[in-house]
Amino acid sequence: METTALRRVTVIGTGVIGTSIALAMRRAGAHVALADRDPAALAQARLMGAGAPLAAGDPPADVVVVATPPSTVAAVLRDAQDRGLGVVYTDVASTKARILAEAELAGCDVSAYVPGHPMAGRELSGPAAAHPDLFEGRPWALCPHPALPAETLRVAAELVRACGARARILAPDQHDRVVAEVSHAPHLVSAALAARFAAADETVLSLAGRGLRDTTRIANGAPVLWCDILEHNADQVAAVLEDVVRDLAEAASALRASGRLRSGSLADLLTRGNQGRRHIADRVA
Amino acid sequence: METTALRRVTVIGTGVIGTSIALAMRRAGAHVALADRDPAALAQARLMGAGAPLAAGDPPADVVVVATPPSTVAAVLRDAQDRGLGVVYTDVASTKARILAEAELAGCDVSAYVPGHPMAGRELSGPAAAHPDLFEGRPWALCPHPALPAETLRVAAELVRACGARARILAPDQHDRVVAEVSHAPHLVSAALAARFAAADETVLSLAGRGLRDTTRIANGAPVLWCDILEHNADQVAAVLEDVVRDLAEAASALRASGRLRSGSLADLLTRGNQGRRHIADRVA
Repeated sequence: METTALRRVTVIGTGVIGTSIALAMRRAGAHVALADRDPAALAQARLMGAGAPLAAGDPPADVVVVATPPSTVAAVLRDAQDRGLGVVYTDVASTKARILAEAELAGCDVSAYVPGHPMAGRELSGPAAAHPDLFEGRPWALCPHPALPAETLRVAAELVRACGARARILAPDQHDRVVAEVSHAPHLVSAALAARFAAADETVLSLAGRGLRDTTRIANGAPVLWCDILEHNADQVAAVLEDVVRDLAEAASALRASGRLRSGSLADLLTRGNQGRRHIADRVA
Repeated sequence: METTALRRVTVIGTGVIGTSIALAMRRAGAHVALADRDPAALAQARLMGAGAPLAAGDPPADVVVVATPPSTVAAVLRDAQDRGLGVVYTDVASTKARILAEAELAGCDVSAYVPGHPMAGRELSGPAAAHPDLFEGRPWALCPHPALPAETLRVAAELVRACGARARILAPDQHDRVVAEVSHAPHLVSAALAARFAAADETVLSLAGRGLRDTTRIANGAPVLWCDILEHNADQVAAVLEDVVRDLAEAASALRASGRLRSGSLADLLTRGNQGRRHIADRVA
């Protein structure tokens, strides 16, 4: 269990990520204030011991965490800064470059804004699915930009550490390229596989096994949130998907061909698949 | 723990599947004889208590399980029948229609052959990865054909039951269409995703999370075995892959487009992904 030098944290958006951060920071000893435009989500988070509702007279927080969907972050950040809710601000959205640009356009003070992204989700959403251990040992991207003082980045890194996660420092556009590879494109691929079973009959489902179960697990994500994420990282995700499409179309052609041509191409893809899988398994517990 | 009316079972091929069947049948009370052309694999299976090596004077088994790769099944079956190793014969290969045709061509007595396929694998291979619980609650396809007497099918179904699995009865070509959907095409899709990380740099791997880990788990399968499986079911797998390629290419186009056109198409795919995932999760523990 971590303890933290951060005394006050405010979390705006008590979904699964925001509430998990709140629970982790409470456990680490911080005072946590909560806000959500949905009174039911706020009440649920409060009931779980995630913190007290943000009140008008509260002193400014050391860190304000904006844990709302990507398309809302800039406006929520601007509003929070206008209200003087905190000293340092961060967010948890899955894309970074466009949100930083939107924050600049919205007139935010970006020198106090550390773009962040914990690489820990759940297939479930909402505060009831939150858990203080959600970030334990997981990577959490922090994306410094030219306007950001080192001391401000350090405050956000302390939040990450206190949540049990490992800070990874990347530039915003580098972050977006990487998450298109490791998260956004795989999400669409998993959805495309799962979608084939939307109207599957009993015979097909009767042979479904654990391989299919695992391959389609992330297809359970909320479509509205994921459309938002994917639109924010559209070109990067499209580029990865186009590569995957090319590899799979080649595999299909190889299967339609015959003999040595076929097996050479398939064996190459499967062998590279083994190598890639080994790298991933070595890194992700 | 199951007990069984089968007294003698012979397993040819002591890989992960064959050895797991041997362990399950030993536990159920059967005498198990083992054969493998690799002396090390045979010794390992024996060491694990999977049975005794098949000997020249052994009486015929109630069931002979051919647990060798798809392309070898017909020849191994013919040889086993020539040697009078058993009364009923079955196999565990991942494709069925072509193997049945090959067995007929090879001059096997197919009236004693029940094409079978346990839907339980491990990403690990070899006898050391075997476990008697591997089939517990898993589907196990049995594929009757016109030459097969009902009593012969019943003997194979008793093997399935004694292994703790659930027999699913499908025609061979129906089986092949279904496994292309639930297993073979997902394997190639998972391999294509994983292959992108064969040469991934540290930055990319630093943000890899559990979603990517699960989506690529099955990409760990042995390429030689999987080439064999895929070639045996080439047209069915190609047809599924071509559909997946079309869906993903559409998603990429939607991402390259803008506004309402984009989000409508993506939301539809993600929503169908949710539905399909629900059906899969409802069926696979």
